[in-house]
Amino acid sequence: MDGAATIPDHSLASVSSLEGQLVPTRLHPESAQSATSTRRALLAGDARPDAVDLSHHLSDMAKSRLTSPLKSLYGYMQQPGMLLLAGGLPPAELFPFESISAETLAKNSFKTTEVGFGAWLWSWIAGTKKTDLWTLNKFDADKTKIQLSSALQYGTAAGLAPLAKFIHEFTERVYQPGTADFRTVINAGSTDAWGKIATTLSNPGDGILCEEWTYPSALASVWPSGLKPVTLLMDNEGMTPEGMDDLLSAWNPDERGGMKRPRILYTIPVCQNPTGATMSLERKKAIYALAVKYDVIIVEDDPYYFLQAGEYEPVPKMRAAKQPKKTETDEEFLASLVPSYLKLDYQGRVVRIDTFSKTICPGSRLGWTTCNPLFAERLERANESSTQAASGFAQALVGGLLAEQWGFEGYLRWLKGIKAQYRDRRNTLVDALLDSAHASLDTRQAGAAFEYWTRDERDEKGLLVREKGGAGAGRKILSFVSPEGGMFVWLRVHFAEHPSFQRRATSDLLMELWTDLAEHNVLVAPGTMFDASEFPPAPPKADELALTDAGDGFFRIAFSTATPEQMKEAAKVIGQRVEKFFRA
Amino acid sequence: MDGAATIPDHSLASVSSLEGQLVPTRLHPESAQSATSTRRALLAGDARPDAVDLSHHLSDMAKSRLTSPLKSLYGYMQQPGMLLLAGGLPPAELFPFESISAETLAKNSFKTTEVGFGAWLWSWIAGTKKTDLWTLNKFDADKTKIQLSSALQYGTAAGLAPLAKFIHEFTERVYQPGTADFRTVINAGSTDAWGKIATTLSNPGDGILCEEWTYPSALASVWPSGLKPVTLLMDNEGMTPEGMDDLLSAWNPDERGGMKRPRILYTIPVCQNPTGATMSLERKKAIYALAVKYDVIIVEDDPYYFLQAGEYEPVPKMRAAKQPKKTETDEEFLASLVPSYLKLDYQGRVVRIDTFSKTICPGSRLGWTTCNPLFAERLERANESSTQAASGFAQALVGGLLAEQWGFEGYLRWLKGIKAQYRDRRNTLVDALLDSAHASLDTRQAGAAFEYWTRDERDEKGLLVREKGGAGAGRKILSFVSPEGGMFVWLRVHFAEHPSFQRRATSDLLMELWTDLAEHNVLVAPGTMFDASEFPPAPPKADELALTDAGDGFFRIAFSTATPEQMKEAAKVIGQRVEKFFRA
Repeated sequence: MDGAATIPDHSLASVSSLEGQLVPTRLHPESAQSATSTRRALLAGDARPDAVDLSHHLSDMAKSRLTSPLKSLYGYMQQPGMLLLAGGLPPAELFPFESISAETLAKNSFKTTEVGFGAWLWSWIAGTKKTDLWTLNKFDADKTKIQLSSALQYGTAAGLAPLAKFIHEFTERVYQPGTADFRTVINAGSTDAWGKIATTLSNPGDGILCEEWTYPSALASVWPSGLKPVTLLMDNEGMTPEGMDDLLSAWNPDERGGMKRPRILYTIPVCQNPTGATMSLERKKAIYALAVKYDVIIVEDDPYYFLQAGEYEPVPKMRAAKQPKKTETDEEFLASLVPSYLKLDYQGRVVRIDTFSKTICPGSRLGWTTCNPLFAERLERANESSTQAASGFAQALVGGLLAEQWGFEGYLRWLKGIKAQYRDRRNTLVDALLDSAHASLDTRQAGAAFEYWTRDERDEKGLLVREKGGAGAGRKILSFVSPEGGMFVWLRVHFAEHPSFQRRATSDLLMELWTDLAEHNVLVAPGTMFDASEFPPAPPKADELALTDAGDGFFRIAFSTATPEQMKEAAKVIGQRVEKFFRA
Repeated sequence: MDGAATIPDHSLASVSSLEGQLVPTRLHPESAQSATSTRRALLAGDARPDAVDLSHHLSDMAKSRLTSPLKSLYGYMQQPGMLLLAGGLPPAELFPFESISAETLAKNSFKTTEVGFGAWLWSWIAGTKKTDLWTLNKFDADKTKIQLSSALQYGTAAGLAPLAKFIHEFTERVYQPGTADFRTVINAGSTDAWGKIATTLSNPGDGILCEEWTYPSALASVWPSGLKPVTLLMDNEGMTPEGMDDLLSAWNPDERGGMKRPRILYTIPVCQNPTGATMSLERKKAIYALAVKYDVIIVEDDPYYFLQAGEYEPVPKMRAAKQPKKTETDEEFLASLVPSYLKLDYQGRVVRIDTFSKTICPGSRLGWTTCNPLFAERLERANESSTQAASGFAQALVGGLLAEQWGFEGYLRWLKGIKAQYRDRRNTLVDALLDSAHASLDTRQAGAAFEYWTRDERDEKGLLVREKGGAGAGRKILSFVSPEGGMFVWLRVHFAEHPSFQRRATSDLLMELWTDLAEHNVLVAPGTMFDASEFPPAPPKADELALTDAGDGFFRIAFSTATPEQMKEAAKVIGQRVEKFFRA
């Protein structure tokens, strides 16, 4: 099948046949005129280019996704007085939900300036929690409001109009995409979105570039479609341009089992899962230049973007001093976040995945994808023939909160509070890990890799002996780089210092230590599950030996869920058990 | 990869790594012990067998879907006092939704006994509509209730426990599956569920058996995965056993471009979309026997099951007399519905798809799949790596309504009312179509195919001249079989009677008539879009000629959405325009 012939003009509204009914695609606020957006944009003083032609990236599957042959119906559906007997839509009168009300936290529920994890908890206990009560009706007299009769009806790939409009404007103002004709597509959560993006752009047997440590569900999503991870070296800032350039410049299909040079990069650039690494703007520019050079599509999965809390300040008393006295302005807040790849993208080769999972709630199963109009149209067809629209309950409730209650400025205020909450959580866990390892304060250098040494390498005052180079110096057993936010500390365990290291595999030692921690009531994630070069991961085998081994193993420790007291207790147990483990 | 090796023991709870966190799979109420269900069932006097081994039906993709290697974590997660720092779950305190309230129609809002479409509308206008107001809290003191803190958190493939339990019990009591170890899996809507079922059971290039007229989105869902429709002949009761037997017994891959004999049947057995045909129990038995004979998996997509309204009674005054005076008992109601294939299924080869789209609301994007434990486990893995759980907002609100407000009996009462609503709607449209064609009452025979004849073939009293065989008799131009419920009338247009029939293609005539109707404000669905033998449908070409042609074309007319007045007006326009069209 000739792909180009099956791809419709995305400037036309399409008609989808959801559940056998014919419903007009609700027009995305910007999408209807996307084909002429540059003209409009230029008229409006917008000098951004449109996306270049990237149609050669579409997969065979994407090209074979069908468009309704009944687009010609659309015009008739809008005809005044039309009697609609085409679609099998249940009447809204038979939906049992007459109205849905939500009691939601005030947008400024979480302080942004004050260090202190317990502040909100205190206000909650004291009964001062501020909430707003609002209602969505099946048939609201105010026709500009969300109507449950629409939200709970069959929807279209474009999504509920007020939410779609909010999302498009949010994307424009926050990420400032480099192309004028970018589009946003509401999705049913990042995992589903990524699977559809990958199969829209890759054929079975293709490679997917990814960080050497990455979110395993992203790989699991595309593995059954025959897509294989191709790993990129990382440092403390994430994947490296040098590693990417070296890999792609030297790519030889003959040495790779016939695999063509990968065209898709899956990356988590901010507070990366699992390593916590955040990429600088300079590095993003270098990676983007390589993407242009090697014709790579960058898929930016960025769930932790608004959890960018800034560098860890090791001295608690310095924290308040460094913080602004008032809540930062919207401009200051947005400037504090490393720009998205979208901003650098003058060709339309960035596909960005946003989610409400971390900023509203994971159960929403709601987010959006931002990309060029060609890819967006194919992704909408993929949604139509699977999940259809995201759940109308989720679209109505999240849309009601964002578009009708909070608005753009209100949501930014909420995000500032969320960011502060994760900053305090990060500080709590990092403080506790340093405390439990009896590290002296002078080791708390911002941005540095913190190191734990065994207790018996301390001097008589209890201070660490830190002669790293010295032959008789202490054994470095743990280290980590404090993350700039997000949810995770990536703890490196230097198993090469373990007495059994020469006889046992690192993975074996890792699982022994992990099990020991679990038996002492601390559950962390073993790093092996995030190892993209060993994907799919095999269950750990205790009897597997390796005489030589890299020697480092990892644990991912989450500071997102546990209370401060739990984090402190866990850090204490980790310090004790690790030390005991290395004495064994 | 050896498939069998990757398929875990489904009796174990699995641990999923959703969004990088590790969360225990909430146990399905029945699934944990499914491997021992027969033993339990027999102890409890349940003589049903377990499913036979059908693992040879699993596709390569299904076999390559990954199971988390960290199932061993699960035991630790349940450990009292465990400090959970493994999963990246946001704390529920940061979810903005403190509580969600719903105002829902009372379960008995719709009368079941009274014929009269306007009854409820009247009660609504009169302000007598009864509603219940209920609330779901983030942290409810009653721990047996749905907690938003759980529903809006990352969920698992098993779904929200109270909803999952309700669904499993509902399936057991209503459908009475023939195997003891059946399982139910919550899904994100039928379209997504069907796509996952198809790719779990078929490899690219495989054929999918389906009715010759079918729901086009079902075909569009699986087309990009390389699955091709193989059509089965239908009569007024749906697909025929003879057609299926003939097709499969004579199957020759060499005559089919190498396609192996299809192993999957996609069928809509009740109030079929688009034909409205409902299959009898006897026919289901015959089809099931053929499925056993040819080792076919039956995928029963049954969205209209509870809209089975019974036969059309042509004489309005007979309707009330035929109806019971009181609302039917639960036993009478369930007995009035043709049994599901599940009930006949003693081997576990039926996969049933249920949806809340027609009985609650389409925007829920929520339903469930019932099948054997092997398939269920693979479908859960497919969900985990794409949609994850269905939206928590939908699960909480539908779960709250069904499991906490209505309960089993309450939902049955609601379904009786919904069924009556669709019965009245069906009667309204069929009455109007017959009226508009000036058919005399004696043509209104229950179960018969109604026929419209051109007006000029009437006798002096206005009665139809019905000498079908007579050479000089009237021209039969329209006919249909009144559906036993559902949403659709499938109107057959006898284009062979059109003056231009010898010179023009039927599809051309159909689109001309369809366009004429649309220009007179009646929008129906042209039958061509449901033609599985011409899938994917090409856009109609007006200049395409065919000298010979089968001569019959179809329109699908929905009675689900329009008001009675709109249906009457539409029927009138159809009668007028069709007659004019045939005089042309």
